[in-house]
Amino acid sequence: MKHAELAEKECAIARTWAVIGERWTMMILRELFRGSHRFDEIQGKLQLGRNLLAARMQELELEGIVERRQYQDRPVRYDYHLTEKGEDLYPLLLAMLRWGTRYKVDEPPLKLMHKACGHIVDPQVVCDGCGEELRRRELRAYLTETAW
Amino acid sequence: MKHAELAEKECAIARTWAVIGERWTMMILRELFRGSHRFDEIQGKLQLGRNLLAARMQELELEGIVERRQYQDRPVRYDYHLTEKGEDLYPLLLAMLRWGTRYKVDEPPLKLMHKACGHIVDPQVVCDGCGEELRRRELRAYLTETAW
Repeated sequence: MKHAELAEKECAIARTWAVIGERWTMMILRELFRGSHRFDEIQGKLQLGRNLLAARMQELELEGIVERRQYQDRPVRYDYHLTEKGEDLYPLLLAMLRWGTRYKVDEPPLKLMHKACGHIVDPQVVCDGCGEELRRRELRAYLTETAW
Repeated sequence: MKHAELAEKECAIARTWAVIGERWTMMILRELFRGSHRFDEIQGKLQLGRNLLAARMQELELEGIVERRQYQDRPVRYDYHLTEKGEDLYPLLLAMLRWGTRYKVDEPPLKLMHKACGHIVDPQVVCDGCGEELRRRELRAYLTETAW
């Protein structure tokens, strides 16, 4: 199977991976979430080749995850912003942050405070019905046999 | 920057991506989460080259995300199981499932029911302090300037 064929699978996870599963894509999104909007800034932070970054940015734009906005007239210059579809990938980054904080760093290099309640956040994935944390064994998948 | 250098960054997200950000890794984990444990089964489902899959499985084993268990004596045969560290990647798959269900499929090919409460789950990432869904603008990052 080729990577591109993932997009054809009848599976929301495979199709998501077809979008974000290229080597650098999540790292580019991380920079955008951190507030870097300009090509040169992102390129400098990630130390990626310009052609590679340009290709990834174009894919993200075609996918509707980022949009270019003109910020200068002469010469014309654009920067990049997350769309709502892009912003909605934020929970995925939080899930990565939590796992990485638990298993991949000794001392969390950053903490996130939830302004609404003042709590230092340990993001949890919960059931929107009862609010309990979701565990695999407590979930039953159904509908089609070919799916997840 | 090379992909392997991500593991050296003082960032839980970069280090997580260094582990799961190879093209096929999350798709392999998805098969394990679905209950496929044997090499040939995973290989058949993903239609990957055997060498590629063997390399990925070895990386996941070295990382402590999967473990091999012997299930047969003559000849000796092993299958693959998620460790606790691997199981803890499940919230990440749920976050992908949610995004993909919203943006990448017309009709969700599968639904997940939370056995504990009977609710059809739309997984949410929430604050473990107050239970509210986490939005980027409501989070303040602090500690080190180089981090997220």
